[in-house]
Amino acid sequence: MVPTIIVHGGAGDIPESRVEGKLKGVKLAAVIGQRILSEGGSALDAVEAAVVSMENDEYFNAGYGSVLNVNGEVEMEASIMSGKDLNVGAVTLIKDFLHPISIAHKVLTDSPHSLLGGEGAKLFALEKGFTTVPPESLISQHARAALNSFLQHGEFGRTEIGMDTKSDVGTVGAVALDSNGHIAVATSTGGMSGKAVGRIGDTPQIGSGTYADDYVGGVSTTGHGETILKYCLAHSIIKLMENGKDASAATKMAVEGMTKRLNNTAGAITLSKNGDVGIHFSSQRLAWAYIKSNKLFYGINHDEVFEDDVSL
Amino acid sequence: MVPTIIVHGGAGDIPESRVEGKLKGVKLAAVIGQRILSEGGSALDAVEAAVVSMENDEYFNAGYGSVLNVNGEVEMEASIMSGKDLNVGAVTLIKDFLHPISIAHKVLTDSPHSLLGGEGAKLFALEKGFTTVPPESLISQHARAALNSFLQHGEFGRTEIGMDTKSDVGTVGAVALDSNGHIAVATSTGGMSGKAVGRIGDTPQIGSGTYADDYVGGVSTTGHGETILKYCLAHSIIKLMENGKDASAATKMAVEGMTKRLNNTAGAITLSKNGDVGIHFSSQRLAWAYIKSNKLFYGINHDEVFEDDVSL
Repeated sequence: MVPTIIVHGGAGDIPESRVEGKLKGVKLAAVIGQRILSEGGSALDAVEAAVVSMENDEYFNAGYGSVLNVNGEVEMEASIMSGKDLNVGAVTLIKDFLHPISIAHKVLTDSPHSLLGGEGAKLFALEKGFTTVPPESLISQHARAALNSFLQHGEFGRTEIGMDTKSDVGTVGAVALDSNGHIAVATSTGGMSGKAVGRIGDTPQIGSGTYADDYVGGVSTTGHGETILKYCLAHSIIKLMENGKDASAATKMAVEGMTKRLNNTAGAITLSKNGDVGIHFSSQRLAWAYIKSNKLFYGINHDEVFEDDVSL
Repeated sequence: MVPTIIVHGGAGDIPESRVEGKLKGVKLAAVIGQRILSEGGSALDAVEAAVVSMENDEYFNAGYGSVLNVNGEVEMEASIMSGKDLNVGAVTLIKDFLHPISIAHKVLTDSPHSLLGGEGAKLFALEKGFTTVPPESLISQHARAALNSFLQHGEFGRTEIGMDTKSDVGTVGAVALDSNGHIAVATSTGGMSGKAVGRIGDTPQIGSGTYADDYVGGVSTTGHGETILKYCLAHSIIKLMENGKDASAATKMAVEGMTKRLNNTAGAITLSKNGDVGIHFSSQRLAWAYIKSNKLFYGINHDEVFEDDVSL
């Protein structure tokens, strides 16, 4: 199997000023993930590393740079899934760790449970040797500005489309197929600006933000969380593929079907079990990148594909 | 449309001593829900009332009588979904309210979000006028005994099948179709005995514990939570029905498919948009009841259907 990775850096009305930074970030994440795959690493390790890279980057709404809840606090969530055995690790309501996706991966490998939240997730992370960071250290200037703008003008519950600042998009995700034919998917987010304390979105809900099944493929989604979870967007794409649609057609059908039914936007990236790619977004923009045959493909607008040579 | 309701009181290895109490509880819950439907009430109100009745009953693992986490605390979760618009309300990590399903219903009607957890869920509930109860008041003698038994003999992560006490099963759920043709589903649980602090199961995850879509039908599931969420059991049943399977065949196919793939058990109750019933469980027992044409049907063992006349 030829290993492949695809990543996204969030769907939404991304302002022009953020385009370059997001493209740089998704390209880097794809290269970091692909490097692991090309050295024989697992799809799980590749998607974690790709997401970690974007969690470090203030251009994305995950880890450092996460958007803030209505009280001005970061509350992050992340999930990771292994297509081999359908194992899941996920965390939510994380306030003081830089890399929720790494804690989620540890839940997958070390916990009898799949999803841990709040204080319980923190206890688990501390037990496993993760180090807390001061919550303020996760807050970027940009996230603070986005919250202020929301508090002045926000249209609650639709913060990822049509906002004045258009700046709180940027959930990140990665889907990889490794040389052993295993698929893994990882997704991480800070949620939406001005969200209520304790709001849990689609990202940690398996079948909504994340799904992986070696017999079919893998999907990571991004966009308006409450809309994605009502539609079980990731699982809907997987089921369309299971019923014979290819990765591209299934991704388009489900994203458009969701937007038509629920009048809100999202995007998804998909790999089939054979490494075929699906990318579709009903939002204005989605930052994405993938690597195939030593070429790096990427884009952010509709009907746009750039191509670079890549050295791993 | 002839209104119908079906309820369950949990899948698992239910000990003989708990059979009668569970059957009494599911029959009562079905009658309470059907009474609302027959007076022209909504499916949402009917499933909430049916679940509230079981949350009050110590024979079920929801509300009063919820099983305890490893620290001896109650942490409950619940979800409710409207098939008309796919709206969702859900809560998790609830420690000091008697009726998580009623808070979930309020999230559906009053919050821009779908799922609230922990302190944020509590803040929301207090704002909406719900009253806290002392956490100890939710603990039954039975739940305490189940935790003690788990702490001595527990097989972690498989507490709902094969446990010595076999006593911590009893997630509750209801699916209703009202006279306007709308479907709603509600599910509520205390989780599993000895679970880690902060563990979130399948119940609040839409597509796993609960799904409703007026164009297809509604499903509530019960069983080993981590297994159900990895398989997106409720959404899997909905998708099989969307692709032409009837309620009964779809429920059986998905439950058996999950158990074959993941080697753990569950049960599900289903109504199609036409009111056709599906009931299937790979566990030893599942307490269920439904009402059709003034007859109350119920059972708890495989291949067993009892029938009573019912006066509403």
